Amino acid sequence: MEMTIDSSMRLVVVGGGVVGLSCAWRAAAGGARVTLVDAAPGSGASWVAGGMLAPVTEAWPGEEDLLALGVESVRLWPGFAARLGEAAGREPGLRSEGTVVVATGSGDRAELETLASYLDGLGRPVQRLSGKELRRLEPAIGPEVRGGLSVPDDLAVDNRLLLTALRAAAEKAGVAFVARNAAGVVDDGTRVAGVTCDDGSVVEADAVLVAAGAWSSALHPALDAMVRPVKGEILRLGHRAGAFPAPSRTVRALVDGRPVYAVPRDAGGLVVGATQADVGFDLEPTVGGVRDLLRDAERVLPGVAEFALLEVAAGVRPGSPDNLPLIGPVGPEGLLVASGHHRNGILLAPVTAEAVVAMLGGGAVADVVRVADPARLLRRANG
Amino acid sequence: MEMTIDSSMRLVVVGGGVVGLSCAWRAAAGGARVTLVDAAPGSGASWVAGGMLAPVTEAWPGEEDLLALGVESVRLWPGFAARLGEAAGREPGLRSEGTVVVATGSGDRAELETLASYLDGLGRPVQRLSGKELRRLEPAIGPEVRGGLSVPDDLAVDNRLLLTALRAAAEKAGVAFVARNAAGVVDDGTRVAGVTCDDGSVVEADAVLVAAGAWSSALHPALDAMVRPVKGEILRLGHRAGAFPAPSRTVRALVDGRPVYAVPRDAGGLVVGATQADVGFDLEPTVGGVRDLLRDAERVLPGVAEFALLEVAAGVRPGSPDNLPLIGPVGPEGLLVASGHHRNGILLAPVTAEAVVAMLGGGAVADVVRVADPARLLRRANG
Repeated sequence: MEMTIDSSMRLVVVGGGVVGLSCAWRAAAGGARVTLVDAAPGSGASWVAGGMLAPVTEAWPGEEDLLALGVESVRLWPGFAARLGEAAGREPGLRSEGTVVVATGSGDRAELETLASYLDGLGRPVQRLSGKELRRLEPAIGPEVRGGLSVPDDLAVDNRLLLTALRAAAEKAGVAFVARNAAGVVDDGTRVAGVTCDDGSVVEADAVLVAAGAWSSALHPALDAMVRPVKGEILRLGHRAGAFPAPSRTVRALVDGRPVYAVPRDAGGLVVGATQADVGFDLEPTVGGVRDLLRDAERVLPGVAEFALLEVAAGVRPGSPDNLPLIGPVGPEGLLVASGHHRNGILLAPVTAEAVVAMLGGGAVADVVRVADPARLLRRANG
Repeated sequence: MEMTIDSSMRLVVVGGGVVGLSCAWRAAAGGARVTLVDAAPGSGASWVAGGMLAPVTEAWPGEEDLLALGVESVRLWPGFAARLGEAAGREPGLRSEGTVVVATGSGDRAELETLASYLDGLGRPVQRLSGKELRRLEPAIGPEVRGGLSVPDDLAVDNRLLLTALRAAAEKAGVAFVARNAAGVVDDGTRVAGVTCDDGSVVEADAVLVAAGAWSSALHPALDAMVRPVKGEILRLGHRAGAFPAPSRTVRALVDGRPVYAVPRDAGGLVVGATQADVGFDLEPTVGGVRDLLRDAERVLPGVAEFALLEVAAGVRPGSPDNLPLIGPVGPEGLLVASGHHRNGILLAPVTAEAVVAMLGGGAVADVVRVADPARLLRRANG
């Protein structure tokens, strides 16, 4: 069912990452007049991301709401990708090979067993595999890996193909792109009026969706302190002639307590990530961060030593105070936010876009999305 | 003394790296009509280089000729840099802080002692320092370093400032730049006639200097097999707020037998290199190569963990069969080569340019350069 939005509604989306583009595309397809404000759409955290769609291997006791949200979104992903491919006239790069999560030392194995038992308890059993069984599935996995879990439903997408497809689909659906940085959301005390840009121009709006990732909090006082930057370093590797083939599944690993992942790409490439650091708006990869990623990736997939190191990058994810995203109305009437997705922006784009379109059209928002209501943070701050 | 070259001589220099640019500048300053053919002057191995001017710490028993050539060139460097700065109107980035070479394990210390004894025997004594003394000189040096040598006369230059200055000086001296790739040198069986470009155009010449680095051998049959590519990976690091300051001297090290160096740059940056591999024309940095450089640099200078990793690159040095450069006439009349400088192109640029200008002007070539006569390789091939 497609939601219908009042076609006189002028929606301005601030931010052209995966969340902003997805919402803009779906809102325009649903009938809204959409303008997207971003000086460089498709750059930022969405561009440097790994593209895991992996809520189950990302699960952790106490984060049931985030797991439910992620599972719902990964369920939506194949349909979202199919519609996107058709609308854009190009494939968005969804991969269906699944995920394994593996452990090296005994502490790492104990932590994976905690995850497996937790999932058992939730009625989401996962398959436990020995090192030998893992190597039978993925011969690229090295001898230091002693065991792991197979989760075929945790998928992945090529985030750069995805961004290109989203932009094409948004353009075809009539989204107007304003290539400027947004400076703030303007309101008259009760309703939003538009978005000011850093050159002083104003884009008028009946509704504004702030989807500016880690930069969201600066755009309106109502968003203050809701989102903080969480730096991550990530590498892009290319297969070279003579090198051992890359795995076909996403390989997540714990190496002496440090998480690392390798997400396969077409042509045998791998995206290896990601560090995490609360160090503000810092987009510089460090020697120590890259050294950790290279060392840990090699311990899990020794053959990557012969791969090309094509790219070293850092991005800032939008972290929220409780690790859940912010999806819903906030502050003056007509202001919505879709941010705070932290490590899960690409995973959660379909469920976020569906919820935003429902909110704009006055439809019912899926139950699992209610936990993302930004009002919870105001309650917390006031209580 | 400035050499004077017949002003009717049309010299074509193939290759706009540090050697080609230096020769073109000096030849044009000496009176020649010079054209430099390169699709991208100032790129290639000269651009990715570290910029060490360090013949003494590079010395090794059996390579006395190379040492003498390097010592002569490092002696020329301050004057060359001063003339270049004046001619270009910008500083070429020469640093006068000197070099230390340090060792970690006992095998590394033994190898450094071999170098020191060798230099003692040549009458070029170097100062032996304990780890503590080294750390007093350069507090950035870490506790794994147990000893080393100080060589104040081994210098360094910022190779990128140098290339910019050389290009400016060459232009001001009247060098004409043809932004095309050379395909080959044309001759009539006895004399060179010009250079063909990959678009089929021909640049006519009375003399041709091939200074095309690792690509030199392909340009004329007389250069066949004289130069081969030797791949090297190299990193550029930037100081970040809060990180320990970089050393002020060049720090060369042996880490479990692997050589690594860190060359200081302005603003606290470091260039860390370099791997060596005989793998053909391969310009892709690998995971294994970068991992080695990061690990070894951290073992010598632990503070670099907090530095920014600004750039990862690979280049191909022009290696010669006997590790000495090729400077002099070869093949048909009017054909000269200045290539095969391997790891020492930037160091040897002044002595090479001086020799080439002397050869073009009919002047005397310095004794130390005679060993670089390409005829030695023909004799070897024929003998």
